[in-house]
Amino acid sequence: MFESAELGNAIDDATYAKEEQKLRSALLDAQYELLESKCFPIIVLINGVDGGGKGETVNVLNEWLDPRHVQNHAFGPPTDEEASRPPMYRFWRALPPAGKTGVLFGNWYTQPIVGRATGKLGEADLVVAIDRVRQFERMLTDEGIVLVKLWFHLSKKSQKKRLRELESNKATRWRVTKEDWQNFKLYDRYASASEIVLRETSTGEAPWVVIEGTDPNYRQLTAGKAIHAAMRARLDGIAAANKVAAAMKKSAGAKGTKLARGAKERATASTSSRVLRTVDTSGILRSLPFTERLSKEKYEKKIPVAQGALNKLSRSAAMKEHSVVIVFEGMDAAGKGGAIRRVTHALDARQYSIIPVAAPTDEERAHPYLWRFWRHVPRHGRFVIYDRSWYGRVLVERVEGFATDTAWTRAYAEINEFEEQLIASGTVVVKFWLAITKDEQLKRFKERERTKFKQYKITPEDWRNRDKWDAYVEAAGDMIDRTSTSVAPWTVVEANDKHLARIKVIDTITSRLSSRFGS
Amino acid sequence: MFESAELGNAIDDATYAKEEQKLRSALLDAQYELLESKCFPIIVLINGVDGGGKGETVNVLNEWLDPRHVQNHAFGPPTDEEASRPPMYRFWRALPPAGKTGVLFGNWYTQPIVGRATGKLGEADLVVAIDRVRQFERMLTDEGIVLVKLWFHLSKKSQKKRLRELESNKATRWRVTKEDWQNFKLYDRYASASEIVLRETSTGEAPWVVIEGTDPNYRQLTAGKAIHAAMRARLDGIAAANKVAAAMKKSAGAKGTKLARGAKERATASTSSRVLRTVDTSGILRSLPFTERLSKEKYEKKIPVAQGALNKLSRSAAMKEHSVVIVFEGMDAAGKGGAIRRVTHALDARQYSIIPVAAPTDEERAHPYLWRFWRHVPRHGRFVIYDRSWYGRVLVERVEGFATDTAWTRAYAEINEFEEQLIASGTVVVKFWLAITKDEQLKRFKERERTKFKQYKITPEDWRNRDKWDAYVEAAGDMIDRTSTSVAPWTVVEANDKHLARIKVIDTITSRLSSRFGS
Repeated sequence: MFESAELGNAIDDATYAKEEQKLRSALLDAQYELLESKCFPIIVLINGVDGGGKGETVNVLNEWLDPRHVQNHAFGPPTDEEASRPPMYRFWRALPPAGKTGVLFGNWYTQPIVGRATGKLGEADLVVAIDRVRQFERMLTDEGIVLVKLWFHLSKKSQKKRLRELESNKATRWRVTKEDWQNFKLYDRYASASEIVLRETSTGEAPWVVIEGTDPNYRQLTAGKAIHAAMRARLDGIAAANKVAAAMKKSAGAKGTKLARGAKERATASTSSRVLRTVDTSGILRSLPFTERLSKEKYEKKIPVAQGALNKLSRSAAMKEHSVVIVFEGMDAAGKGGAIRRVTHALDARQYSIIPVAAPTDEERAHPYLWRFWRHVPRHGRFVIYDRSWYGRVLVERVEGFATDTAWTRAYAEINEFEEQLIASGTVVVKFWLAITKDEQLKRFKERERTKFKQYKITPEDWRNRDKWDAYVEAAGDMIDRTSTSVAPWTVVEANDKHLARIKVIDTITSRLSSRFGS
Repeated sequence: MFESAELGNAIDDATYAKEEQKLRSALLDAQYELLESKCFPIIVLINGVDGGGKGETVNVLNEWLDPRHVQNHAFGPPTDEEASRPPMYRFWRALPPAGKTGVLFGNWYTQPIVGRATGKLGEADLVVAIDRVRQFERMLTDEGIVLVKLWFHLSKKSQKKRLRELESNKATRWRVTKEDWQNFKLYDRYASASEIVLRETSTGEAPWVVIEGTDPNYRQLTAGKAIHAAMRARLDGIAAANKVAAAMKKSAGAKGTKLARGAKERATASTSSRVLRTVDTSGILRSLPFTERLSKEKYEKKIPVAQGALNKLSRSAAMKEHSVVIVFEGMDAAGKGGAIRRVTHALDARQYSIIPVAAPTDEERAHPYLWRFWRHVPRHGRFVIYDRSWYGRVLVERVEGFATDTAWTRAYAEINEFEEQLIASGTVVVKFWLAITKDEQLKRFKERERTKFKQYKITPEDWRNRDKWDAYVEAAGDMIDRTSTSVAPWTVVEANDKHLARIKVIDTITSRLSSRFGS
C-alpha cells in the first residue's frame, strides 16, 4: 500500500511556486462553484504517521481555500461528554453542510489503528471496527458527500530522521512529544495495523490517497491536487447530468425529465478515478536501476540449485494443506513465458497447470470478471500459474477503456478481497511484475521479427500496446501501489537480464513457500 | 424482521389459480426478454427454516420458468475437493451467465447461520462472515447481477405443526429427517442467528424478502412476484437508459452519447423498491383487533403505579451508564403528544428532552438525513423522546416522494446500523407505533375542529395525509417489518383507547429498562 510513498518524491521550489499558483486559483474556483451550487459537502480526512506533515497540510489548505467556508476539526481522546455517547457522535457533529469543506484531523480511523497497534484491540475487534467505518462511509457517499482520504506516509528511516530534525531545531522542538517517540518504537506495529485498515477501507467510492510526507512541496501539492480533483469531478458530473436533464426535458417534456433522473442520481457517484490519478505511482517502475547482470555461466550453475530447492518444497508434507497461485504480469516480451518454463521445470507435471489469459470468451464475458479466475483456483497440493491474470482489469481493461472508471477503481478492493480469501484457505499467492525498459522491448520485438520460430510471438497488437507504454506504466504503478499487501506482496523483477530474472522468480517462490510452511 | 411472516398469510385456491396464470405469463415474458438482451443474470437465493417450503418453491419456479434457462444448484456440506479451496469457490462456479437464472438452494448464508446457531461460530466470527458476504454481494450487484434473496419463515408453532403434518402423511414422511427435528430444538437459536444475519445483509442493493411459509399458495405466488418484480425493474431501467442514450445521440451526437453514459450505468442500480413491494406488510397494522378498553376509573388507578415504577428506574444507579431514546410514530391524532406527557410526568424535568420533528430546516437539509437526530443523542443518565423521528425517511419522505426509491430502500439498513450504535454505547431504544383506525382518526379530527383550544392541532395538511392513509399503512408495515429487531423492537400500541395506550407505553418503557438494567 505504501510503495509509491517511499520513492523519495520531491518537488523543487521553482516548480512548486508555479504549480501552487495554478492550484490555488483552481481550488478557489471550485470552492466558490461548490458554495454556489450547495450540492454537496466535501470532507477531507487527514491521517498518517507522526511527522508526516499532517498539521502543516491543514494549515496550508486553510491558506489556499477561503477559510470562511472551511471547518477544521481536530479530535483528541473523547471528553467525558463524548465518551458517554456512541463513538461516532462527535464525528457526526463535525460533518460540514452542503457547499462547505470539512477538514477532519484525527477522525474515525484514529482509534481503530492506535487500538490495534497498541494491542488494545484484538484482530476480531478490528474487523468489527473496520466494518462499522465502511458502512458509515458508504452512507456518507450514498448521501452525496465527497470524501477525500489523505494518508501521509513516512518510511521508518524517514520518520526517525524527521523526528530528529524537528527536535534539533529550537523553533520546532515543541512539536515532537514523548508520545511521538513512543509511537515510533511501535512503527512496525503501526505500519501493519495501518496497512490492514487502509487496504480494507480503500473502497471504490472512497479510496485512500497515500502521500509521501518527506518533502513539504510534494505533499502539499499532492494533497491540494487530490482535493481539487475530487471537487472538480463531482462538479463536472453534476453539470453533465444537468445538461442531459435539460436536453431530455426539451425533447420529451415531463417524460424526458423522468427518464433523465437516472443521470442526475448517477452524478453523485464515483469521483475516484480522478482522485487516484493525482498521485504519480509510475516512479515505482521508473526508478528501477537495471544495472545488475548475471553471466550465462553463473546462471547455469545457479538455476539447478534454485530449481532443486523449489522442487523439495513442492514435495513437502506441508503442501497437503496448501496450494500455490503464481501470477505473472509485465509488458509484452518481458519474458513471462521463459520464466514460467523455468518454474515448471522444478515441478512435477501432474502438480501444476498454466492458465494463459487472453481476451475473455463469450461465456467468460457473461459473468463477473473474477469468475474466470475462480474457475482455476487450485485445490490443496497444487500449483496454478497465471500467465496474465485478474489484474487485466486494472491494466489492459483500464488503458483500453474496456472497463468503466467506476469498474476499475473498485476492482482494487475486489482483488484484495479475492486474494485474502485464497490466502485464508491455505493458498500462497506470489505475484510478479517482470519489468523491462522500453529499449529492451524494442530489441526483443525486432529479434522476434528476425527469428523465424519466434515470429508467431509478435503481432501488430504488440506494437499498438507499445505506443501506450506510458499509460501501462501508470496503470501498473497504481496496481502495485494498491494491491501489494503484506499478505500478497508484488515482487517487481528487473527483467532486462533474463538470467537474473529467472533466478529471482524461482528464489522468490521458494522463499515465500518456505516462510509460509514455517520451514 | 419476521413480523409480516407471522400473520397467517394465505391465498385461496380460486384466487391462486387466477393470479398464477397472470404471473406465469409475465415471468416467461420477462425471462425471454432477459434472454434476448443478455444484459444481466438473475440469482435467486432460497433460504429459511425447514418445512418453510423451500424445495417446493424451487420446483414450482422450474415449472413456471423455461427450465432450459434456469440453473439449479443445491449445496450440502462441501466435498473434499471443495473443502481444499476457499469456501466461496463452489458458489462462484454456480454463478449463472448473463441472460440466465440461477436458483441457489443452500448457499453462502447457510454456513454462517448454522454455524452460529449450533455454536461453532463465535459472535466475532459471525461478524467476519457477514462482512465477507456483504462484500461479495456488493461486487455481484456492482457487476450488474440481479440478486433476489428469499427467506421462507415459519413461526415456532407453525414449524412444529408443519413437521408433524409432513410426518403423519406416508407420502411426505421421507422429507422430515432426524436433523430437521434436531434443528427444531434449536429454533430460538436459529431464529436469533437468522435475525442478525438478515438484518446485517438486508442492504439497499439486495434486501431480503421474508415470505411466510405456511400456505403454499401464498409463498409460491409471493416468491414468483418478487422474482418478476426484480427482472422487470431492471429490464425497464435498461430500456429507459437506452431511450435517453438514443435521444442524446440524436440531439448531440458523440458528445450526447458520452453525456448519457451515466444513465446507462445507473440502470444497473436499485431494483429494491419494486421487490420490497411484493410482500404486503400492511397486515401488521390491519390485523390489530382494537377490542380492549380501559375505563377512566381503572386508568386513574393504574397510571400513578406505572409512573412510579418508571420513575424508580429513572433514578436507579444503572442510569449512570445508560441512556434512553424513545421514539413515537403514528398517524396524525394517534395520541403521541398525550402519551409523551404521561411519560415525562414520571421523569425529573432536568433528565429529559423532547425533540419534536417536523420538516427539516435548511441547515438540516444540507446534511445527511440522520444528522439532525444524532445531534440530540443523549449522554448517559438522560432520556430523549423523539416526537416523530428518523423513520420519517421511510414514512413521509417515501410516501410524498421527497426521498428517491434508492434513498429510502437503503435507509432501513442505515437506521438499523444507527440504532445498533446507540445500543452498543448503553442506550435503551424504545420505539412505539401508536395505531388507530381510520374512523377513530376522523372522530378525533372533527373533535379538534370543534374544540377551540384544540384547533391549532388540525391543519389542511392533516386532511391531505389522511387521503394517503393506505400508502402510510403500507410504509409503516414495511418499516416495522424491516426495523423491528431483537435489540430495538417496535411496540405497536392499539391507541383507539387512549387510556390503554398510555399505560402500555409506560409499562413497555419500564420493562425494557428493567430488563436492560438486569433488575
